[in-house]
Amino acid sequence: MSELWNKLYSEAAMQQKASPIREIMSVIRQPGMISFAGGMPDPEIFPVQEFYDSADIIKREGKDILQYGATDGYPPLKEFLSEWTKERMGRKVSSREMLITSGSIQVADLLTSSTVNKGDYIVTESPTFLGTTLDMHNHGAKFICIPCDSEGMVVEKIPEEVERVRTQGGEVKFIYTIPNFQNPVGCTMSMARRERLLELAEELELAILEDDPYGYIRFDGQHLPTLFSMDRKGLVIFGGSFSKILAPGTRVGWCFGDSNIIRKMTVFKQGVDTSTSVVSQALVYEYCRKGYLDDRLPGIIDHYRKKRDIMGKAFKEYLPAEEVEYNTPEGGFFYWVKTPRISTDDLFNKAIEKKVAFVKGEPFFPNGGGEHEFRMCYTFASGEQIEEGVNRLGESMKELL
Amino acid sequence: MSELWNKLYSEAAMQQKASPIREIMSVIRQPGMISFAGGMPDPEIFPVQEFYDSADIIKREGKDILQYGATDGYPPLKEFLSEWTKERMGRKVSSREMLITSGSIQVADLLTSSTVNKGDYIVTESPTFLGTTLDMHNHGAKFICIPCDSEGMVVEKIPEEVERVRTQGGEVKFIYTIPNFQNPVGCTMSMARRERLLELAEELELAILEDDPYGYIRFDGQHLPTLFSMDRKGLVIFGGSFSKILAPGTRVGWCFGDSNIIRKMTVFKQGVDTSTSVVSQALVYEYCRKGYLDDRLPGIIDHYRKKRDIMGKAFKEYLPAEEVEYNTPEGGFFYWVKTPRISTDDLFNKAIEKKVAFVKGEPFFPNGGGEHEFRMCYTFASGEQIEEGVNRLGESMKELL
Repeated sequence: MSELWNKLYSEAAMQQKASPIREIMSVIRQPGMISFAGGMPDPEIFPVQEFYDSADIIKREGKDILQYGATDGYPPLKEFLSEWTKERMGRKVSSREMLITSGSIQVADLLTSSTVNKGDYIVTESPTFLGTTLDMHNHGAKFICIPCDSEGMVVEKIPEEVERVRTQGGEVKFIYTIPNFQNPVGCTMSMARRERLLELAEELELAILEDDPYGYIRFDGQHLPTLFSMDRKGLVIFGGSFSKILAPGTRVGWCFGDSNIIRKMTVFKQGVDTSTSVVSQALVYEYCRKGYLDDRLPGIIDHYRKKRDIMGKAFKEYLPAEEVEYNTPEGGFFYWVKTPRISTDDLFNKAIEKKVAFVKGEPFFPNGGGEHEFRMCYTFASGEQIEEGVNRLGESMKELL
Repeated sequence: MSELWNKLYSEAAMQQKASPIREIMSVIRQPGMISFAGGMPDPEIFPVQEFYDSADIIKREGKDILQYGATDGYPPLKEFLSEWTKERMGRKVSSREMLITSGSIQVADLLTSSTVNKGDYIVTESPTFLGTTLDMHNHGAKFICIPCDSEGMVVEKIPEEVERVRTQGGEVKFIYTIPNFQNPVGCTMSMARRERLLELAEELELAILEDDPYGYIRFDGQHLPTLFSMDRKGLVIFGGSFSKILAPGTRVGWCFGDSNIIRKMTVFKQGVDTSTSVVSQALVYEYCRKGYLDDRLPGIIDHYRKKRDIMGKAFKEYLPAEEVEYNTPEGGFFYWVKTPRISTDDLFNKAIEKKVAFVKGEPFFPNGGGEHEFRMCYTFASGEQIEEGVNRLGESMKELL
């Protein structure tokens, strides 16, 4: 009886947009398909045995972890994170400034619920992670889009754009940034830009959502300070995740921020899911407590560095050099490729024929664009698949020229 | 810098209401406190060993369950539920009509996102489960409140109330009911009322959210058909949960409904948490597959039946008979007590002094009421604690008279 439902949908439901990455799954699962599409970790390096060992905690703490848990998170995991993150956060974050979430995408969802009225604006990089901006769209948010260059978001452009919206009566709530190994572009925000961004946020009275799922996956160079550690005004909400440093099937992420906004987000979370799976949180905690997180991280970084390099080498070997532009990311999961003379729509269709998949650029641009750009994830496919897949992609490009 | 945050909050955040049950936790944790407050299962009967055995699935399927999962749920768990629920659903529900959620409270959250614009109305029982209605309030919903009697929601009152709101230009979206062992009242909707409710929903063009977390915990008598099984028009969304039949720390629930609305809810869920913890879903699945769910359920029912009876006996022994009214529930977790001559606020304060806690009636009434009513959960406390706690409650009442 879809006619009845059509009468009952909310405006948000009628305007909702689905994630093309989630939707592409059926294409990716075709036999023989090589996928550079979803930003998925390599299951070959999942710590299956160590994670199974960590299930011991069920025997020891079963009565506690099978019960309802506190909405703000499993206390031992919160304590672990406070200690484990203290170097990058610049201090031990207190329990009241912390919320455990069901993946780091929930950080954006709860912050949006807490700040955005329908029609309010969020400042984002463009392109940026579409999973987050689609959810923000589904909350009724509009976007101020700021481009990225090799130093990350071009923050100098923010004031003019914010003033333009404010002059027209619009409300702007926060700046959404992925400062490290940005998804999808792979760029990292320079120190000077970080400093300027914090100054601007303060001047413009805006919060900052610092989304950092890839921060620990750095291949080259040194970590830059987090915005959270540089913030003296309580403006920055930091979002972290176990998805890339342990495994995404746990759906455990976290955020740090001013206790007032953490409290608002916690109350929204009461109604969204009561708490993140206590079972999942406890297994993640035990994995960390046993030292597996620290033991495994260097191996994960090495593994993905090699894959980044294999893809970079394959780009040089198989892609028509004069037709493509890309930068080499210092960490994270993605290359971002520009093909000025080739439409990504055409390229995608041709590539799927040849059994190779990527994500088209357009959905990464909240206000449109990206018709000649696309994202390539190097973490999921094997080394051989990367070579073969990039070869097929190169053939697809040549056929289209 | 809470001044800045005060400027950035959304209207929803400024008007949000926290769950008094979640908030009361710090009171409950006081040493010596006997709690009848939260609707918590008894940890003494959590299947700790069986759940630990189920973690075997990590060894077998680790690469799959540590990866991102489908938003609509872990396929083996969906297949299990289709089969396991077929008797009460009247048929095997198909995969496209099913969504695995992070607890059954998420069913209400996603359905509200999918249907309710700010200011739209939801028809609810009154009193009803405050966790759900607080979340609906946080989405901007208003309420049409329908009383309950011993046959459940007095559905005959619905048309008049809906027409009144519609005459004033209000939009009404769905009817929220807990038909079995209602939270907090404990009543069960009669067969005649179920039939009439479906007719009314059809006439009034309203959907129905059938929230059934307690449905399998029946102590006496026979199961009545679910509204979902009686529905011929695709109006009913059925919400189920593993919280009471396995353990709430898993945060795994599910819903069944018309594939159109399930699709809308699934797209909202993409942005809320991507999927329910795959780790949690897989452990729950393995627990079910190994037969533990069916093996343990009769024992759980027996255990809670005994506790219901201990509390009923203690009521007769310790409460001033002429001052209290209550019915004996046929299943579920709760007694609902009315004290016409005693204010529940006063009683609560007195009881906390004597180290016994319950939940006051008021927050269960979305539009107000309940000043002389309160909820008593009998599942969490031990038999001895129930006797002693009801004794203290009786003393509190006598001191207030």
